[in-house]
Amino acid sequence: MEPDGMAIFAGSGSPRLTARICEYLHVPQGKNETLHFSDGNTFVRILENVRGRRVYIVQQTVFPANDNFMELLFWIDAFKRAGTESVTAVIPYFSYAKGDKKDEPRVSIRARVCADAIEAAGASRVVTMDLHAPQIQGFFHTPVDNLYALPILSQRIRDIELEDIVVVSPDVGFAKQARRYASSLGVSIAIADKERQAHDEKAKVLQIIGDVKGKTAVVVDDFTISGGTLADVSVKLMERGAKEVYAVVTHGVLAASSVERINKSPIKCLFITDTVEHQPVEFSEKIEVVSVASLFGEAIKRIHNRESISEMFQ
Amino acid sequence: MEPDGMAIFAGSGSPRLTARICEYLHVPQGKNETLHFSDGNTFVRILENVRGRRVYIVQQTVFPANDNFMELLFWIDAFKRAGTESVTAVIPYFSYAKGDKKDEPRVSIRARVCADAIEAAGASRVVTMDLHAPQIQGFFHTPVDNLYALPILSQRIRDIELEDIVVVSPDVGFAKQARRYASSLGVSIAIADKERQAHDEKAKVLQIIGDVKGKTAVVVDDFTISGGTLADVSVKLMERGAKEVYAVVTHGVLAASSVERINKSPIKCLFITDTVEHQPVEFSEKIEVVSVASLFGEAIKRIHNRESISEMFQ
Amino acid sequence: MEPDGMAIFAGSGSPRLTARICEYLHVPQGKNETLHFSDGNTFVRILENVRGRRVYIVQQTVFPANDNFMELLFWIDAFKRAGTESVTAVIPYFSYAKGDKKDEPRVSIRARVCADAIEAAGASRVVTMDLHAPQIQGFFHTPVDNLYALPILSQRIRDIELEDIVVVSPDVGFAKQARRYASSLGVSIAIADKERQAHDEKAKVLQIIGDVKGKTAVVVDDFTISGGTLADVSVKLMERGAKEVYAVVTHGVLAASSVERINKSPIKCLFITDTVEHQPVEFSEKIEVVSVASLFGEAIKRIHNRESISEMFQ
Amino acid sequence: MEPDGMAIFAGSGSPRLTARICEYLHVPQGKNETLHFSDGNTFVRILENVRGRRVYIVQQTVFPANDNFMELLFWIDAFKRAGTESVTAVIPYFSYAKGDKKDEPRVSIRARVCADAIEAAGASRVVTMDLHAPQIQGFFHTPVDNLYALPILSQRIRDIELEDIVVVSPDVGFAKQARRYASSLGVSIAIADKERQAHDEKAKVLQIIGDVKGKTAVVVDDFTISGGTLADVSVKLMERGAKEVYAVVTHGVLAASSVERINKSPIKCLFITDTVEHQPVEFSEKIEVVSVASLFGEAIKRIHNRESISEMFQ
Amino acid sequence: MEPDGMAIFAGSGSPRLTARICEYLHVPQGKNETLHFSDGNTFVRILENVRGRRVYIVQQTVFPANDNFMELLFWIDAFKRAGTESVTAVIPYFSYAKGDKKDEPRVSIRARVCADAIEAAGASRVVTMDLHAPQIQGFFHTPVDNLYALPILSQRIRDIELEDIVVVSPDVGFAKQARRYASSLGVSIAIADKERQAHDEKAKVLQIIGDVKGKTAVVVDDFTISGGTLADVSVKLMERGAKEVYAVVTHGVLAASSVERINKSPIKCLFITDTVEHQPVEFSEKIEVVSVASLFGEAIKRIHNRESISEMFQ
Amino acid sequence: MEPDGMAIFAGSGSPRLTARICEYLHVPQGKNETLHFSDGNTFVRILENVRGRRVYIVQQTVFPANDNFMELLFWIDAFKRAGTESVTAVIPYFSYAKGDKKDEPRVSIRARVCADAIEAAGASRVVTMDLHAPQIQGFFHTPVDNLYALPILSQRIRDIELEDIVVVSPDVGFAKQARRYASSLGVSIAIADKERQAHDEKAKVLQIIGDVKGKTAVVVDDFTISGGTLADVSVKLMERGAKEVYAVVTHGVLAASSVERINKSPIKCLFITDTVEHQPVEFSEKIEVVSVASLFGEAIKRIHNRESISEMFQ
Repeated sequence: MEPDGMAIFAGSGSPRLTARICEYLHVPQGKNETLHFSDGNTFVRILENVRGRRVYIVQQTVFPANDNFMELLFWIDAFKRAGTESVTAVIPYFSYAKGDKKDEPRVSIRARVCADAIEAAGASRVVTMDLHAPQIQGFFHTPVDNLYALPILSQRIRDIELEDIVVVSPDVGFAKQARRYASSLGVSIAIADKERQAHDEKAKVLQIIGDVKGKTAVVVDDFTISGGTLADVSVKLMERGAKEVYAVVTHGVLAASSVERINKSPIKCLFITDTVEHQPVEFSEKIEVVSVASLFGEAIKRIHNRESISEMFQ
Repeated sequence: MEPDGMAIFAGSGSPRLTARICEYLHVPQGKNETLHFSDGNTFVRILENVRGRRVYIVQQTVFPANDNFMELLFWIDAFKRAGTESVTAVIPYFSYAKGDKKDEPRVSIRARVCADAIEAAGASRVVTMDLHAPQIQGFFHTPVDNLYALPILSQRIRDIELEDIVVVSPDVGFAKQARRYASSLGVSIAIADKERQAHDEKAKVLQIIGDVKGKTAVVVDDFTISGGTLADVSVKLMERGAKEVYAVVTHGVLAASSVERINKSPIKCLFITDTVEHQPVEFSEKIEVVSVASLFGEAIKRIHNRESISEMFQ
Repeated sequence: MEPDGMAIFAGSGSPRLTARICEYLHVPQGKNETLHFSDGNTFVRILENVRGRRVYIVQQTVFPANDNFMELLFWIDAFKRAGTESVTAVIPYFSYAKGDKKDEPRVSIRARVCADAIEAAGASRVVTMDLHAPQIQGFFHTPVDNLYALPILSQRIRDIELEDIVVVSPDVGFAKQARRYASSLGVSIAIADKERQAHDEKAKVLQIIGDVKGKTAVVVDDFTISGGTLADVSVKLMERGAKEVYAVVTHGVLAASSVERINKSPIKCLFITDTVEHQPVEFSEKIEVVSVASLFGEAIKRIHNRESISEMFQ
Repeated sequence: MEPDGMAIFAGSGSPRLTARICEYLHVPQGKNETLHFSDGNTFVRILENVRGRRVYIVQQTVFPANDNFMELLFWIDAFKRAGTESVTAVIPYFSYAKGDKKDEPRVSIRARVCADAIEAAGASRVVTMDLHAPQIQGFFHTPVDNLYALPILSQRIRDIELEDIVVVSPDVGFAKQARRYASSLGVSIAIADKERQAHDEKAKVLQIIGDVKGKTAVVVDDFTISGGTLADVSVKLMERGAKEVYAVVTHGVLAASSVERINKSPIKCLFITDTVEHQPVEFSEKIEVVSVASLFGEAIKRIHNRESISEMFQ
Repeated sequence: MEPDGMAIFAGSGSPRLTARICEYLHVPQGKNETLHFSDGNTFVRILENVRGRRVYIVQQTVFPANDNFMELLFWIDAFKRAGTESVTAVIPYFSYAKGDKKDEPRVSIRARVCADAIEAAGASRVVTMDLHAPQIQGFFHTPVDNLYALPILSQRIRDIELEDIVVVSPDVGFAKQARRYASSLGVSIAIADKERQAHDEKAKVLQIIGDVKGKTAVVVDDFTISGGTLADVSVKLMERGAKEVYAVVTHGVLAASSVERINKSPIKCLFITDTVEHQPVEFSEKIEVVSVASLFGEAIKRIHNRESISEMFQ
Repeated sequence: MEPDGMAIFAGSGSPRLTARICEYLHVPQGKNETLHFSDGNTFVRILENVRGRRVYIVQQTVFPANDNFMELLFWIDAFKRAGTESVTAVIPYFSYAKGDKKDEPRVSIRARVCADAIEAAGASRVVTMDLHAPQIQGFFHTPVDNLYALPILSQRIRDIELEDIVVVSPDVGFAKQARRYASSLGVSIAIADKERQAHDEKAKVLQIIGDVKGKTAVVVDDFTISGGTLADVSVKLMERGAKEVYAVVTHGVLAASSVERINKSPIKCLFITDTVEHQPVEFSEKIEVVSVASLFGEAIKRIHNRESISEMFQ
C-alpha cells in the first residue's frame, strides 16, 4: 500500500459486506485477525504495516452486539497506535443507536456512551447508515456520514412495478422517514398507531390512520428484530382493505423466530439490506437482500478523494 | 445564604419566570446584573458572595437568541470562577435545539455546538423543557433533566371540557409527541402531512391523515414562531369538517406578525407557557399563557434535595 | 436511602459477591435490572431514586466478558445521568487488564481502551483486586484502589499448616508478586521458566529455577483460565522432588475443561477467591473458594467514611 | 478547488475585508450563506464541497457582537463536519478580548469562555490582530497568530511627514504598546493618567505624564468605541501646549455618537483599519481607514505555504 | 482531621510561609515528605490519611524552579489519587508567569504549559499572588484566586511616614499596576522608559517620564531577580533630582549578586514579601521582608468556609 | 527544509545522541537554543521556520531530571504553536518511568503525571527506549514506540565471545526481561532475590536462585543509578562460584560514586548505551558505551516514511 493510501479492513462482524466494498473499489482487503479467547476476551491484530495509511475499518455491531462493539474499539486503538494517518469507523449497522434518549427515568443514553468510547479510542470519522435518529450524529464530536439506503431500496420497489402504492409507517415515530419514501415514490402515507383503550393502561389497539383501501401497502422501517410489528401491521392493513403488503427495512437484524413470523404474515416480500451479517436464522424466500456495498464503497472513495458525499443522494 | 445552599439567579432573558420560581420556592432571588455595552458586548456581574453555593441560573435563549445564549455562557463561567459548588443551567427554552441534525449537506449541528460551549463554560447540570428532540439530552455529557409541559397543558385542556377531541400533529415529525397528548386525553390522533404533487418539486399540498370530521381538533406542537403552520393546519382542519380548532404549544416564541396570523386563523384559543419572554409582539385575547414556574420550581427543589424528578411525571 | 448515603448495586456479573458485600456492611442492596434483548443489546434500569447518593456498582467482567463490560459502562452512565453524587466502579476481576502493553506489533492496549471508556462514561473512582500489572492504575486518571487478596489467601495457607513451604512463580513475569507471598509466609521462592532448546524456535523446555526438593510447593498466580500452566508446573515440581503441590490463584476464571485439567494434575488443592462468577464449569473437591467479600466491603466502607484503605494491608 | 487547497470564506461580519483578502491572494472567495431567522437564530450553510480543503473563515465579532460570534462557532462546526482538512478562524477584531481577566469580584473571563467555545467547535488555528492583551494567545491551546497593524499604521504616519512627534498613550495600561509605536517612529512617549483627587473616590483628574509642549501628539490605542477617551486626552494635550493631535487606532469599533465626539475634538485625523465592519455610524472626513487586508492575505498565504509569519514583522 | 476538614501541607519550596499560614489559622500542618534521589528524580509521599479532606498544598516555584514545579504536580496527583475531596494549589510565587505570551517568534507560552500540567494533574483551584499579568487567570479553566500584596506593602510605606511621595514604575509595562499603588497612597506616578537613540538599534537611554524633583521616589514592581533595573532606575531618579528612593517588590526572587547590586544603589530600603524562600543570597540590612502569611491564611480560611475573598481587598 | 519535511532538534539533555542520529540520517540538525535564567527558569527558542514540518525533538530527562523534563514540555509547546505538522517527542531515557504505580499508600504515579503533561503540551507521538515497564505505553493516549536496546547489546556480548554464559536478573522484577536476553543468547537464567530473614523485618539476605557455578554471569538491567545492586549481585555471584561477571544495562544513569562502586566490584565490564548524557562522573575503563543512535535514527526514518518499526526487531 502507498503512504496516505486507502486501506480497508473487515471487523469480524462484517466480512461479506467488506469483501463486496473492496470488490466495488477494486482494492485488496487489508490483512488482520480477531481471536476470541476461552474466557471471552477479544484480541485483535493487524497483519501488515499501516503507518501513514488512511484506514477504513468496517464493523457492524450485532450478532454478537457487545463482542462486535468492543472489537471495534480495539481495532480503532490498534490502528491509532500503529501510526495510521486516520481511522474511519464504518459501522453499517450501529445497534445501540436505539438507546438515544432518556425516555424513562434512570436509564443510560447508550448511544452516547458508545459514541464517547469510539471517540476516546481514537476514531477520526464515522460512516454509518440510516441511524435510528439522525440526531445521533450530534452525539459525536467527530464528523459522521449517515448514508441512506432509500435510493437503493426505493429503486427496488420501483423495479417491481407495484400499482397504487401507499407507504405505511409502522408507528408514529417513523412517520417523518416514511414521508421520505412516499415522496421518493410520489405517493401518500398512512400511519399505524397504537391507541390506549379507555382506562386500561395496557390494552392498546392498533389503528391505521389514513386510507389504505384497495392499495398496495409498503411498510417501511429502519430495522426489525422480531418481525412482530411488521407482522401485526400487515394483518391490520389487510383487515382495512389493503390489496397486498410489502415491507422495506434497512437493517435486517432478524433474531430468532423472526423469519417464521414474517413467513406466517400476509407480507408478500420483505426487502432488507446487507448491513447486518451472521443472523442466527435461515432466510426464507419471502426475504430479499439488496446490497448497499456500492453506497459504502462510493462513500469511502469520495471521503478518500475528498469529494462530496451529499451529491450521492441528490 | 447558607454554604451548600440553594441560590437562584435570573439571566436577562427570564426575569419573570425566575421571579415566579422563587415565589414558588419561597426563596429570595440572587442579586446580579447584566450590562449591554454600546459595542454589543455583554457583561455579567454577580452581586453577592456565592462560594460553595449550588447555583441555578435561569435563562431562556431567544429575544434575543445569541445575546441570551452568550450571556448564559458568561454566567456559568462567572459562577464557576466565583467558587460555587455547582452551576445548574436552567434553560426553559433552548432555541438552538432545532439545529439537532445534519439533514442537509454542510450545515452545523448547532445544538451540539451550544452543548459543548455550555459544558466548556463549566455547567454541572442542565434543566430544560420539551426539547425539540429528546435525543439532545445525549448531546450533553452532563446530566440533563428535560421537563414536560404536557401535564400542565393537558390539564388546561381537560379544564375547558371540550367534547369529542382529536389531537392533531401539525406534521409527521411531531406525530410521536402528539401521541402522548392523545394518550393523556384518552383520544385518537390525526396527522397533517405535506404531500408533493406529481412531478412539481415545490407544489406541496397539505393533507390531513386520519378522521377529524365533527371533532374538536387540538393541534399540539413544541414551539411556534410565525404561527404559519398552525394557521394553515387549522384552515385545513375546518375544511375537512372539524367542529372547532384549539392549539397547544409549549414554547410561544411568537416573532413579529405571528399574533396577527393566529388572530386571522380559525383557531379559537392558543395555549402557550411562560418559558419564553420578551416576545416582540402584543398578545391578543386568543392567546392564553399557562405558567410552568411550578414545574421548574419543583424540579429545582427536587434536584437540590436529591429527590426524584421522574416522580413529577408519573 | 439518605442523601449522600451509600448505595450498593450489583451488575449482572457479580450478584453473589455483591450480596456478600451488602451482608458484610449490613446495608440493603440497591434495586436495578439488566435486560438482554434478542438482538444481543444490553439495557439497564435503576429502580429507585439515587439523586445525591454515592453509588458503588459491583461488576466483574468475564462470563461473558464483553457483555459484562458494556453493561458496566451503561450502569456508570445511568447513575451519572440520574444525578448521583459519585459513581465508584467496583470491578472485582478486570478481565482486559491482561491487554496492558503493546508487546507485539499493531495490537491494541485493550486495558487503556477500557479505562478510557470507563472514565468517559463518568466513573469517579475504581476499586479492583490484584490487577494483572499494578501499572494499570496509571491507565486511569481517576483514582484506583487495587486491593490485594494476599492477606486472606496467605492466611488460608497458614491455616492448613503446611510444612517446609517454597512459593513457586509459574513464570518469570510473576516472580515479583510470588516474592510477596514468600515474604508473607517467611519462605523462599522458586521460579518456573520456559527455556528455548538449541536452534529450534518452538521447542521450549520447562525448567524450575531454585530448590524444591522435599518441599511443599505452593504455586501462586493472579489468574488461571485453562489451568494448563498450573498443571504443567505441578508435574515438573513433582519430577524435581517436591513433596506435594498446592496452588493459590486470586481470579478463578476457569473456562471449559480447566477443572478437569486441575483434577488430573498432582495439585492437591487449588484455592481461588469469589471475584469471578458464572464460570461455565462445575467445581471439583480440589477447588476451594475463599471469599474476599470482607475486603471489598471494608474498602467500600472506608472509602465512604473517608478512612485509609492502606491500613487494611499493613 | 484542489484537495488540500486554500478556501477562503467570509462570515457575515467581514464581507469587505474578505473580498480584499481574496483580491490580494488572487483566489476566488468560497460560496456560503448565513440566514437570520425571525426568532433570532442564526443558520449557516456552505454551498460548495470542501472535503480535504484547508479553510480560512474570516469573521470579526462586533456589529452585532454576539450574533457574529455564534455564527463563527457554527461556521467552524459546519466546516469540521463537512470533512475539511483544517479550519482556521480569522478574527480580525475579537471583541471579547477585552474580557481578559477577573479584575473585579465574580465576573467572567469572557475571552477564555470564547476561546474554549472556539476550540470546542473545532478550530485548528486562530489568526487575529492586535489582541487587547497579548496574553490572550495563551487562552487558546490551539496556535494563535496575532498580527500587528503597527507597520502599516506607522508607515501611514511617516507618509504624512509630521514634525516633532510625541507618541501618547491614552492611559497607563497601553504604555507598553505606545512604546512600540514610539520606537518605530524614533520618538519619545507621554502617558495620560487619571489621578484620584484627595479623598474623593470618584473625582479623577486627567494628567499628562511627560513633555508634549510644542509637539505633534499622536495618540495611539488598540480600539475606540465611544471616542470619549481620545477626545478627552486630545483636549488635555492641547491645554498642555501640544501643537496638534492625531490619533491612530487599530480597531475602529465606533459605536453611536463616537464620530460626532471625534469631530468636536481637537483631533485633526483619526486613522483606523478595516478590521471592523458594519459600524452604525457614518464616517466623517476626519476618519481615514487604512486597509490591513494585505497583512491578513499575506499571513494566510504564509500559513498555507508553511512559511514564517514572523518575517512579516521584522 | 475531620472528613471534609482543612488540611494544609507544605511543598519543599515553602516550608516557612506554610508554617506561618498554619500559625495564623491555628491548624496543625499536614505531614508529608519529599525525597530528592541521586539521579535528580523527585518523589513525594503523604504521611497521613487524607481521604475526603479539602487539601491546600503550598509551593512556590523557584529555587529551584523546575524541581519545585514538578514536585507541585506530583503533590497534586498524590492528593488526588489518595481520595481527597479537593486539592487547592497555593502558589505564592508562580515563576513561569513571566512566560505569558508569544512576544517573539517560535517560543513557548510557558505559563499555559504549566497551567495545563497543573490542571491535568488534578488541581481543583489555584491561589497565587500578584501574577505577572492578571490575564494568566484565564490560562486556567479552574478558578484562580490572585491575591494582592498591595494592602500590606502599601500600609508598610504609610507606616514609615515618607513625605511627598511619587510612585515610580520601572518600565512602561508596569505603569498600570504602579497606578494602583499611587491611588492607594494618594500620590502621582512617574514612569521609567528606555528609549532608542537615533538609528542605533541597541543604544537605549533610560528616561524618567513625569516629575520627580525633590520627591521621595517609591519604585514598585512585581518581582526582581538581578536587582539591575531597580538599581538603574534609582540612579536615574537621583540624577533627576529625587530626594531619596525606596523600592517595593512583591516577589524577592533575588538571585546571585542581586543583593550586592541593591546595596551599591541609592535605594534606601527594598521591601519584599515572603512569597519566595531559599534565595541563594544573604539579605543585607537594606532589605526588609514583610510577611503575607496572613493574606494567604485568610484566603484559605475564606475559601474553606465559602466566604468572599474579594472582601479582603475592599 | 521542505514542507512536511523531517526536522530533528536536540534538547539540551541530548546534544551528542542527536548529533549521531542526524549523522546516521544524513540530515542537518535543526537550530534552536535553550536559556537557563538566573532564577532557574528555562526558556526555549526555535531559530528557524518550522511551519508544516514534522519535528522530532530529542531530549533525555536526567542530569538534570526536572529541568530537562520541563524543557521538553516547552519545546513541544513551542513547536506546536509554531505551526508544525506534528511533534514527536524522542525521549531516549524517560527517568520518571520508574514512578509507574502506587505501590505504597499516598504516592503519585509520576509517570502518568509526566505522560499527561507531555500530551497536554501537544506531542503527537513518543519514541523512547526500554521503558521501565512496558505498560507505560498505556499511560499515553498518543502512540508510543518503545525501542529495545537488546539487539545491539546482545550482539556486543556475542562479539566478545564469552563461554558458558548464564544471564542473571538482579531482582525478581526484572526476570521477564532477563529471559529475553537469555533467549537471544540461547542460554539459561538465574535470579538474584532478597529474602527476609526470620522475624527481623529489615535483615534481608541476597540469594541467587538458579545455577551459576563455573559460568560466566551476565547481569542485565534496564538502568543503574548507584551501581549498588550490580556490585552486590556480582559479589554474591562470585561467592556462588561464577567464573566471571559482566553487566549489561541500557540506561547508564550513573550518579555520583557509582563508577567507583563498579570499579571496586568483581564486574569485569559494564556495557551501557548513550541514551543518558551529562553524567556527573568520569567513566572508568570498565565501562563501555555502545551507541543506539542507529536504532533511534532508523526509527525516526521509518516513522517519517511510514514504514514498519516492528521489522527492526524481528
